[in-house]
Amino acid sequence: MRDDAFIPGPRLTLPGAGAGPLAGLRFAAKDLFDVAGHPTGAGNPDWAASHPVPERHAWAVRTLLEAGASLAGKTVTCEVSLGILGFNQFYGTPRNPAAPGCLPGGSSSGSASAVAAGDCDTALGTDSGGSVRVPSSLCGLYGIRPTHGRIPVDGMCAQAPSFDTTGWFARDAATFARVAAVMLGEAIPDAVAPAPLLLATDTFALADEPVQQALLPAVERIAALLGKGLERITLGEPGELAVWGAQRNVIQRAEGWQTFKPWIDATNPRFAFNIARNMALAASLTEAQVALANSVRERARARARLLLDGGAILAIPTTPFTAPPLGLPLSELDRHSERIGLLCSFAGLTGVPQVSLPLATVDGKPAGLSLIAARGQDARLVAIARAL
Amino acid sequence: MRDDAFIPGPRLTLPGAGAGPLAGLRFAAKDLFDVAGHPTGAGNPDWAASHPVPERHAWAVRTLLEAGASLAGKTVTCEVSLGILGFNQFYGTPRNPAAPGCLPGGSSSGSASAVAAGDCDTALGTDSGGSVRVPSSLCGLYGIRPTHGRIPVDGMCAQAPSFDTTGWFARDAATFARVAAVMLGEAIPDAVAPAPLLLATDTFALADEPVQQALLPAVERIAALLGKGLERITLGEPGELAVWGAQRNVIQRAEGWQTFKPWIDATNPRFAFNIARNMALAASLTEAQVALANSVRERARARARLLLDGGAILAIPTTPFTAPPLGLPLSELDRHSERIGLLCSFAGLTGVPQVSLPLATVDGKPAGLSLIAARGQDARLVAIARAL
Repeated sequence: MRDDAFIPGPRLTLPGAGAGPLAGLRFAAKDLFDVAGHPTGAGNPDWAASHPVPERHAWAVRTLLEAGASLAGKTVTCEVSLGILGFNQFYGTPRNPAAPGCLPGGSSSGSASAVAAGDCDTALGTDSGGSVRVPSSLCGLYGIRPTHGRIPVDGMCAQAPSFDTTGWFARDAATFARVAAVMLGEAIPDAVAPAPLLLATDTFALADEPVQQALLPAVERIAALLGKGLERITLGEPGELAVWGAQRNVIQRAEGWQTFKPWIDATNPRFAFNIARNMALAASLTEAQVALANSVRERARARARLLLDGGAILAIPTTPFTAPPLGLPLSELDRHSERIGLLCSFAGLTGVPQVSLPLATVDGKPAGLSLIAARGQDARLVAIARAL
Repeated sequence: MRDDAFIPGPRLTLPGAGAGPLAGLRFAAKDLFDVAGHPTGAGNPDWAASHPVPERHAWAVRTLLEAGASLAGKTVTCEVSLGILGFNQFYGTPRNPAAPGCLPGGSSSGSASAVAAGDCDTALGTDSGGSVRVPSSLCGLYGIRPTHGRIPVDGMCAQAPSFDTTGWFARDAATFARVAAVMLGEAIPDAVAPAPLLLATDTFALADEPVQQALLPAVERIAALLGKGLERITLGEPGELAVWGAQRNVIQRAEGWQTFKPWIDATNPRFAFNIARNMALAASLTEAQVALANSVRERARARARLLLDGGAILAIPTTPFTAPPLGLPLSELDRHSERIGLLCSFAGLTGVPQVSLPLATVDGKPAGLSLIAARGQDARLVAIARAL
């Protein structure tokens, strides 16, 4: 039986540098990252055939190899990084080892699945709309969407450049922090600086009640660790999270259409219906719609500065639910994706870093708690994760 | 090398009844027609897996078998009958034996290709938006879209019920007429009744200049045969063909969405981008848009009655151009499809029968001339084809 987490064909492995801070670790790379001499598949059967075989490693792959980690394989991704629930109609849906019979979350589905299954110690993902955060939550992993623009994305297939980031997964906080130090190029502090923890009540209200209840004890623990109290706030004005979700969608889709349009026009590729539908809808967005969405983005950014620039940490549920079962109709999948978008849009719109921590379960299935800080404070978030 | 005209796998053949009016003929069936005990593929890899294997032959298959023809195989179709140029991104594009290196036209692409290549004598196609007429024109064949509602469509995959018809192809007029007599259940008259021939100048003006010039001598021949003169008319008011094309698209897509929506929701199937895009756009059509389009349809129907109920025959180019080359970008393919739609919409909207006759070539590539008559006068059109 093929392990769904990895792309079809012989496993692509590479040894890491003989020594380094990650010596002994095995990593997997989402099939959106270039590995020199091997086609990048991007989760779609028509991508590799119409793109040249890369001559150089992606920055993230090179960085991990040079730090001593070895490549354990390339992993299945949702088609061209689109899809937040983790299914792939061409290569199969990677299993969720933490919630058998359920979706793994995506689009970095195979990377999360491989880490959760123990097939590797860490794995590279990309996160434009939640593609590391969501599978972290649903598969019970540590995962990060770093500050936008902080980590080079060269050699990584683009989707929506003003959203695209490189992230990674780990099963334990120590490994998560070890990889973070290399990827961020910054030591992870041992001490956690005191800070207020902001509980965004409007984000919790969007989650299923059992998820809310399961996450609250973790919030209390983190507030205690941070030592400056727990403050209940709302992330947005009433209804604003829905606006952010919808307008984030507009900008991200419009950028994605610009990215993929030349390829689509040249090759009329095959897609699962939902992927093509989203592209088709993106193609009909007007400049006025995108301009409106960008003005909303500025409001979200202002809100992020106001809440976080003083050093506070924000806590939100990563996903509103635990892993949905396999086999749902598309209309149900769409509703799930839309709900996820309400929670993932804030970091996407504002570019702040977000880590998802596997601190709760509901009926045995994981639910992640996210911590968010001001731009550039990635290492602080990782330090909190490790200190817990 | 696989013959692209036929679906992958062993050739599905069945003997016909021992005797009958079609004894000795071999026919192919587009893979939208049921053959008992064998999955119907509909040109899409996810269709067969999510539909039961048919227990009975489609009416058209049964009728040809009972008339003595034998089944020579099932042929590639554009996905779920959508696509007028004949490409299929999953199974390959059937070759156009009459125009090497060019598209065959669709969606009954494989059926036209198989007949043009001599792999069979006749073949079943479906025509909702031009899917028999267009490949007839581009592959140099006789083809018919019968009066809508005249021929049973049971066992044929539906697309847009108020447009769907069963048609057929042949290389020569005698075979075309022989099959017609069986399919129509009506003798094809030997004599051609005198009638005026109407040349629709607005339809000719939509065709490439060389196509117009190549078709005009055939028009003159037919006018002479019909013996009551050639009258130049316009099919619509100025600009009306474009309106008909656009509104036909609205109705057909809206009906297609109703047909395919449950399947798409249940399975999120894979499609070429252009197919999924058209479905996605259909999904967003409003009732008001469809109601407006239906009022336009009534105008077209009134026009058909006015022009044709007195017994006149209408001549239009089947397609505005000869077979386009393979390898065009999607934006070019879209422009070609839109132009075809301007000519194919009249019969689609009004339900009148249309035959395409292989009476011209441009630079060695076929261009079909279409004859159109009042509803129910299918046999008359076939008689004219045979008498030429």
